[in-house]
Amino acid sequence: MKVAIVGSTGYGGVELIRLLASHPLAEVTSVISSSSAGTSITEGYPHLTGIREELLDDVDPAAIKAKADVVFLATPPGVASKLVPQLLEAGLKIIDLSGDFRLKSPDLYKEWYKKEAADEAYLKRAVFGLPEVYGDSVQDAPFISNPGCYPTATLLGLVPAVKEGWIDPSTIIIDAKSGVSGAGRGASLGTHYSELNENFRAYKLNQHQHIPEIEMVLSDMAARPVVATFSTHLVPMTRGIMSTMYASVQGERSAQDFIDLYKSYYEGRPFVRIRPEGQWPSTKEVWGSNYCDIGFAVDKRTGRVTIVSVIDNLVKGAAGQAIQNLNLMMGWDETLGLQFVPAYP
Amino acid sequence: MKVAIVGSTGYGGVELIRLLASHPLAEVTSVISSSSAGTSITEGYPHLTGIREELLDDVDPAAIKAKADVVFLATPPGVASKLVPQLLEAGLKIIDLSGDFRLKSPDLYKEWYKKEAADEAYLKRAVFGLPEVYGDSVQDAPFISNPGCYPTATLLGLVPAVKEGWIDPSTIIIDAKSGVSGAGRGASLGTHYSELNENFRAYKLNQHQHIPEIEMVLSDMAARPVVATFSTHLVPMTRGIMSTMYASVQGERSAQDFIDLYKSYYEGRPFVRIRPEGQWPSTKEVWGSNYCDIGFAVDKRTGRVTIVSVIDNLVKGAAGQAIQNLNLMMGWDETLGLQFVPAYP
Amino acid sequence: MKVAIVGSTGYGGVELIRLLASHPLAEVTSVISSSSAGTSITEGYPHLTGIREELLDDVDPAAIKAKADVVFLATPPGVASKLVPQLLEAGLKIIDLSGDFRLKSPDLYKEWYKKEAADEAYLKRAVFGLPEVYGDSVQDAPFISNPGCYPTATLLGLVPAVKEGWIDPSTIIIDAKSGVSGAGRGASLGTHYSELNENFRAYKLNQHQHIPEIEMVLSDMAARPVVATFSTHLVPMTRGIMSTMYASVQGERSAQDFIDLYKSYYEGRPFVRIRPEGQWPSTKEVWGSNYCDIGFAVDKRTGRVTIVSVIDNLVKGAAGQAIQNLNLMMGWDETLGLQFVPAYP
Amino acid sequence: MKVAIVGSTGYGGVELIRLLASHPLAEVTSVISSSSAGTSITEGYPHLTGIREELLDDVDPAAIKAKADVVFLATPPGVASKLVPQLLEAGLKIIDLSGDFRLKSPDLYKEWYKKEAADEAYLKRAVFGLPEVYGDSVQDAPFISNPGCYPTATLLGLVPAVKEGWIDPSTIIIDAKSGVSGAGRGASLGTHYSELNENFRAYKLNQHQHIPEIEMVLSDMAARPVVATFSTHLVPMTRGIMSTMYASVQGERSAQDFIDLYKSYYEGRPFVRIRPEGQWPSTKEVWGSNYCDIGFAVDKRTGRVTIVSVIDNLVKGAAGQAIQNLNLMMGWDETLGLQFVPAYP
Repeated sequence: MKVAIVGSTGYGGVELIRLLASHPLAEVTSVISSSSAGTSITEGYPHLTGIREELLDDVDPAAIKAKADVVFLATPPGVASKLVPQLLEAGLKIIDLSGDFRLKSPDLYKEWYKKEAADEAYLKRAVFGLPEVYGDSVQDAPFISNPGCYPTATLLGLVPAVKEGWIDPSTIIIDAKSGVSGAGRGASLGTHYSELNENFRAYKLNQHQHIPEIEMVLSDMAARPVVATFSTHLVPMTRGIMSTMYASVQGERSAQDFIDLYKSYYEGRPFVRIRPEGQWPSTKEVWGSNYCDIGFAVDKRTGRVTIVSVIDNLVKGAAGQAIQNLNLMMGWDETLGLQFVPAYP
Repeated sequence: MKVAIVGSTGYGGVELIRLLASHPLAEVTSVISSSSAGTSITEGYPHLTGIREELLDDVDPAAIKAKADVVFLATPPGVASKLVPQLLEAGLKIIDLSGDFRLKSPDLYKEWYKKEAADEAYLKRAVFGLPEVYGDSVQDAPFISNPGCYPTATLLGLVPAVKEGWIDPSTIIIDAKSGVSGAGRGASLGTHYSELNENFRAYKLNQHQHIPEIEMVLSDMAARPVVATFSTHLVPMTRGIMSTMYASVQGERSAQDFIDLYKSYYEGRPFVRIRPEGQWPSTKEVWGSNYCDIGFAVDKRTGRVTIVSVIDNLVKGAAGQAIQNLNLMMGWDETLGLQFVPAYP
Repeated sequence: MKVAIVGSTGYGGVELIRLLASHPLAEVTSVISSSSAGTSITEGYPHLTGIREELLDDVDPAAIKAKADVVFLATPPGVASKLVPQLLEAGLKIIDLSGDFRLKSPDLYKEWYKKEAADEAYLKRAVFGLPEVYGDSVQDAPFISNPGCYPTATLLGLVPAVKEGWIDPSTIIIDAKSGVSGAGRGASLGTHYSELNENFRAYKLNQHQHIPEIEMVLSDMAARPVVATFSTHLVPMTRGIMSTMYASVQGERSAQDFIDLYKSYYEGRPFVRIRPEGQWPSTKEVWGSNYCDIGFAVDKRTGRVTIVSVIDNLVKGAAGQAIQNLNLMMGWDETLGLQFVPAYP
Repeated sequence: MKVAIVGSTGYGGVELIRLLASHPLAEVTSVISSSSAGTSITEGYPHLTGIREELLDDVDPAAIKAKADVVFLATPPGVASKLVPQLLEAGLKIIDLSGDFRLKSPDLYKEWYKKEAADEAYLKRAVFGLPEVYGDSVQDAPFISNPGCYPTATLLGLVPAVKEGWIDPSTIIIDAKSGVSGAGRGASLGTHYSELNENFRAYKLNQHQHIPEIEMVLSDMAARPVVATFSTHLVPMTRGIMSTMYASVQGERSAQDFIDLYKSYYEGRPFVRIRPEGQWPSTKEVWGSNYCDIGFAVDKRTGRVTIVSVIDNLVKGAAGQAIQNLNLMMGWDETLGLQFVPAYP
């Protein structure tokens, strides 16, 4: 299977290159970057010396089609919405890592992304690629919209409880924390080393563009509209997301009950690991891997459950999940090329 | 004013030494450590070379009384409860930075600290030294119990809203994050560099010993029993605490309304800084200083307020607040020796 | 090929587990720890949840022989020297990651390690496993002593120039820097997070036990005794070593001359990457991989060359190189199970 | 004494504001920034909320003169060279933190800074403000050029030994390491958090613009031309510089001999602290303070001394030393406003 990557010089693109290098059935045949076409990818990424030395291609649907069967889009907001129609027209399968096709409503996209939305016809064709929740629709889909990093950690932590009615959806509060690589490679004061090191920062409270994506799935699971409080924070580290989530428990449920429910819901899903009672995952325990680890605490005093969910934002939150979607799209084993042990310490 | 510090070789003690070095009216006349008595403090802390070179004293109430008028206790749990009676007997004024005298109920102490509580008679004599809330009782008190680091950031962020009934106390959720220095200087796997660096970790969910201290004050403010959900996380940095707090708003209140309320409540209190709308403090913005900075977000969609409160855990969360209490106890200006500009970056 | 790991609960052991998990021809059949035998390895390393859940075995040569053909020793100083005779007796092949068998002289070991040396008969049987320098002797060797982390980065950066007489061996100065994981998992004040974060520290100047190992190989290459100045520093990061090396150039040589020499010396050696002129590798560019990257600067003003060499101390500096040695020992392709792209960023 | 700061929105400027806030005799009356004039300094630096809220002034020599007696220039290369003549003309005393007036030779400036040099007449009037070496000329000087951060750490570590002829100047090798704040506040890929965190990087080998400044002073001390090998590295931390320096010892000298020599040379100089034998300073041990700490190792095997010198690059390497120069310029006690205990941890 020949694969092209558009947006190869961003962190998402370069992580796709890293992971696909050990995929047994997929081969990257074109690394593409509109901004750096014609230069070697090792100029910006010397760690690829001796691994990938070829020049970066420009974005050209016909040329892509000549070289590849599947294309990953790891592009900034607003790029995929324009590219996808041409790529689909050219007969390519697509996995879009950007947010352009995640929301089904163009109005919602415009409201949260402050940009024009993609054509609604194409929005409808995109399958939301969260395999552990929507695995059946991912199977054989030709066009997949890969979930955001925060929504992946958050939804895997909330879906079983919401779906089963074990928590009151109107009480959901999500306190999320991310490493800085989630902000991409663009240099700015907000990602300047001296400003972030030895610092912990809250940002975009109630305003993050991942909010409608989270609510879309929670509403689907609850079968009624759900709005949630969602906060984001920057942690002085490169990789990793933790969502600490709170909700009121419906009925009498212990942490062990939640553990049993989640183990059963994620049965046969190799990338979700449920932790034993009293153990909560830390982000380093999934570093560099495609795992999402989840732990629980139930507080009898307040009647609330606390759910801790962690991922590597560049793997399960981006490139790894995209490859998982590729595997499912092709009918392959979900874990192909993704059986990395987390790099610890 | 002559001052002794018991527990001088812990991070709290050494921070007292740093801050008191520029206090115009207090002089440290005895640095005390039961574990290192007879050695120079520079052996363990070479940064004090040329600043304090004298030998550490042993813990001896009579000797302390001979050298000092006020004693700071920066000791592990269970030490102050035994020392305080002798020190009070000896006629010393006391500021205890440990948790031994914060809770008025011995049973509560035993339940959360898993240790024997101090004698109830002495528990009653300790004044809870959160000056911005209990300033009147701190004034002239001979024995002050200095609040914990998490409670300081949390309570300063919640008290005005709870007191005024602007938030529903039964909905309070506190998601707290701390730098690693809060764990002290004792080496363990839990504070081992390679385990914490590039890692974000949740711990002691619903079990932290600061919970009853927070609830004690919130209940006092609400004039009814309050229980709260409280989570703690370790951030890969040395100093700084952020409490991100959530609650349902009672009535129609904007972020600006909260800002106005808090500015009015903290009027004349130099160490609390309320941020303008849309701005949330980060921990580095108070690094090394005695400030507590607070920002707000109100979400009309969910009817909740998010309150972000930050401190330096070793200053406003420990040694700085202890000196602020000393100043008030002595009838001095609250800011003496504490007018540090945060060290940024 | 069945493989056992003694010392599985140290960072070297757990990195062997990570890397061997994707080795196509080797299978870990016994994870061994004398200190934690009988417990699950996931107790100390939750990141292995679902990957390796079995109980840790105790150290028992007969039992190891029953389960494995090759044994990796990732043990503290002084352990391998006692174990190796029994394991060789039992007919096992051995790759020792500790320093016990690197120095051929028992006196030198005693002097630098402050411990009793291994039996000289066994010292003689150990092959020093630096494949890019001593590849021929590694081939088919039944007992390999894996080089230290600092020596690996340093020697790969110096050997070609010393061997060819391009630098004056009496002028060699090595300024080495390491991430903290090199100190292992044992908690101490020296590896305490708050002491190392936002700190850069020099240690063991002229005293590091890796000095005789470096000088042994340099002397071999120069065909005369070489002593070198060697300094070590702790960098506030987990993984990575950089050796910055200085020496006077013999004859007229440009940086490009050095590049050409090294490219030619390391021809066919996939894990050494020589950087183009004006580019010096940083540690993150080899993070998680088995690469050693080397760059050069020649200063006409001073007549000195500066050589920068980087590795991941846990991979090329320990577990990765050990697996490379396994591959060579077995006559396999050197890169089996080691074709990781560095994890960047 | 009224003081103005030009370049108030850079890290050097904002550190001047921090330190001068507790200076007993100097008062900052104008904070100036050409790029941000008319806005509040708290917009870019919220940590100054409630401390300095006034608007930033534009650069106007007459207006500065109306408000201040002394002006600090904390400006990028090439700015001071144009401003200084006007400011001197206006009768202002000047302390320039930039590199524009450090080198006496315009050609050398052009060669290393790749910019036009300042007018030679003004170059001659600037006094090089390294008080521990050139204290006499600093006294009463109206125009001081503040040394660079690397030169400060390096020269304080080398001057006594070079001056006394204890080391061979032709053998000097300087391996320097800096925290990232030395690169200033301008955002770029080179200071992007995800690129620097968990990374150690060499840069500008033999090319750093501080080389001629170091050689100028060493040549002065040796009374003959000295060229030195000088390497710079970026450490994943915000503040701190360590220079590890190597040279061949002339004659028989022990580490203790060096300690005695340096103690004697720096007698009466409060900001240089010489460490006892076997102890080398780490950067955190001077964090936030104006100290330069120095330690020694002498290796009989190689005949070399290793000198370790550390400073906080923003304090002794910039703003602190500038204030020390102000104190000396005004005939005040050298330590006024600078008696900070290092912030540890």
